[in-house]
Amino acid sequence: MTRLDDLPLRDDLRGMTPYGAPQAPLPVALNVNENTHPVPDEVADEILTEIGAALREVNRYPDREFSALREAFAGYLGHGLVRDQIWAANGSNEVLQHVLQAFGGPGRRALGFSPTYSMYPLLTRATGATWVSGARGERYELSATDAAAQVRETDPDIVFLCAPNNPTGTPLDLSVIEAVYEASRGMVVVDEAYVEFAPHSAPSALTLLPGRERLLVSRTMSKAFAFAGARVGYLAADPAVIDALRLVRLPYHLSALTQAAALAALRHAPTMLRMVDDIVAQRDRISATLTELGYDPFESWTNFVMFGGVADPRATWESLYAQGVLIRDVGIPHSLRVSAGTDSETTAFLEALASVDSAS
Amino acid sequence: MTRLDDLPLRDDLRGMTPYGAPQAPLPVALNVNENTHPVPDEVADEILTEIGAALREVNRYPDREFSALREAFAGYLGHGLVRDQIWAANGSNEVLQHVLQAFGGPGRRALGFSPTYSMYPLLTRATGATWVSGARGERYELSATDAAAQVRETDPDIVFLCAPNNPTGTPLDLSVIEAVYEASRGMVVVDEAYVEFAPHSAPSALTLLPGRERLLVSRTMSKAFAFAGARVGYLAADPAVIDALRLVRLPYHLSALTQAAALAALRHAPTMLRMVDDIVAQRDRISATLTELGYDPFESWTNFVMFGGVADPRATWESLYAQGVLIRDVGIPHSLRVSAGTDSETTAFLEALASVDSAS
Repeated sequence: MTRLDDLPLRDDLRGMTPYGAPQAPLPVALNVNENTHPVPDEVADEILTEIGAALREVNRYPDREFSALREAFAGYLGHGLVRDQIWAANGSNEVLQHVLQAFGGPGRRALGFSPTYSMYPLLTRATGATWVSGARGERYELSATDAAAQVRETDPDIVFLCAPNNPTGTPLDLSVIEAVYEASRGMVVVDEAYVEFAPHSAPSALTLLPGRERLLVSRTMSKAFAFAGARVGYLAADPAVIDALRLVRLPYHLSALTQAAALAALRHAPTMLRMVDDIVAQRDRISATLTELGYDPFESWTNFVMFGGVADPRATWESLYAQGVLIRDVGIPHSLRVSAGTDSETTAFLEALASVDSAS
Repeated sequence: MTRLDDLPLRDDLRGMTPYGAPQAPLPVALNVNENTHPVPDEVADEILTEIGAALREVNRYPDREFSALREAFAGYLGHGLVRDQIWAANGSNEVLQHVLQAFGGPGRRALGFSPTYSMYPLLTRATGATWVSGARGERYELSATDAAAQVRETDPDIVFLCAPNNPTGTPLDLSVIEAVYEASRGMVVVDEAYVEFAPHSAPSALTLLPGRERLLVSRTMSKAFAFAGARVGYLAADPAVIDALRLVRLPYHLSALTQAAALAALRHAPTMLRMVDDIVAQRDRISATLTELGYDPFESWTNFVMFGGVADPRATWESLYAQGVLIRDVGIPHSLRVSAGTDSETTAFLEALASVDSAS
């Protein structure tokens, strides 16, 4: 049998293992920050109708410029954005890969503030650039002064700001983005994958786009839109940035079926988003109950909660697993992360956790 | 207004323009080797049913290992292949990108025999490797001796063999693949995107896989399966090669909708493929008529015909365009390329061409 090491694999890939949260068929899966509410039936029907229409000409290549979809994203985002400022790809991972291919690559550097989304370093290195791991302050917060100082010190070509942050849930003030932008000569990517779960009064980084041609704001339909399986990420930026991404994307990278599905879902954005408030309520219930149980939940503006005060995360994770509840050990000492599910899923998690005697 | 040059774009991208055949809404579009026959209604209905089922849990991430789909591809390909030997991605371009990410990249070299598929050099350079352009012999043919000599001379890390070749349509004998494999220490990719249009008696490179762990055979559903809009490419190789590709793919790169659509289409492969014989008949009619008109069509085992003897390709292309017929100027002197369409599309092309006095 041939082994991987017998093949002329790139040297920098030797010894690596594939990325991946376990995909285990447990009754209560709260490990990858999915939206556990299915797409509402009435929207699913409309999506299917739109896909059915697309299937009639699926023998042809899709619209390479996905113009209708970009138009729809601009309308959904508002803030006066227009189609030429929008990009999309198969999940925000591919959006970020395009950014790295255009502005990163060999000889360049990307900076992020750890702990943060674990794909940033992987995507950075996969496209040949160097990853620089910046630091966060108390309770994983990031101040404008501190962030700008780290940017000046490392002089990155790309800065990733996850706002709110994954896996910690931490909000990010717009003043941090402004300061990082001022301190930087490179591209500044604000990843708003979870922004729909932030307080409605909190402004988006989209408000900072005018006059900042190096600022990119990425989003995803995976979370608030309950569309993780459809793989749709998108981004708003200066039209020149979109031109740059067009240079590196594979031709026809977005299928006609993906375009149709996303377009129909966006037409029903209010219905698709109506479970967001429920999820936020469950998240806040998780935080409150964790505190009662003696754990230390971190402030979250997302659809998940990271909590410290776990004596033995592995043991707690396994105990929950044995009770049919899957959460995530993100590798941070004495901490675990749980996604906010439906009311009953959240209750199942909290009851299972209450049965474990593991607060340190 | 910000221009692309105002941004900190990678140096090697400066001055580039995006890939792309024109997407013009002409009545007869025979420019990008699409299958101009729509998916049969009865299969489209089944695909839609399968997608409808997938939509019910589209809030969850898709099966990262796309196990059912890999199983189905193994079954379709036959030759005793099993699931662990199959890979798939969003179009064969992404499949080839994964191959280059795993086995190419900075400091490595890829070789192809020009003229060949124009994405090979673009994908190679986009992943940081060097593209080496090998040569073909008379009428774009490639002999085992010649190909092996060029491999020994350039010592590539990856060899691309397009079989049959795009844009020329040229068949490739299995003896060439065997000779290239023997002469090479690197990965040998046989791109069989158009193989379903070859004579049924001609063996596939799949027959060469046993005992050749560096041999990869890529396919696509875009052409014979009339699925260009769905973006599904795939590959068969040693299981160790699949392990390598798993290291570089983005997590969840294949959407649940794509997996569902491809799975349903594969269940109806005989129906999906029933237009292949029609297309082959139109292709042969094109070749015969081109000869009658004084042009010089090259032998084709694909769904298109490249023909020489065109005095002024640009003028002929424009004259056809004005008559509502879109074909492709692939940049080869005195030559043009046309896809075989339906009977009426093919007639429209041939009549339009007959009205142009341009054979040299």
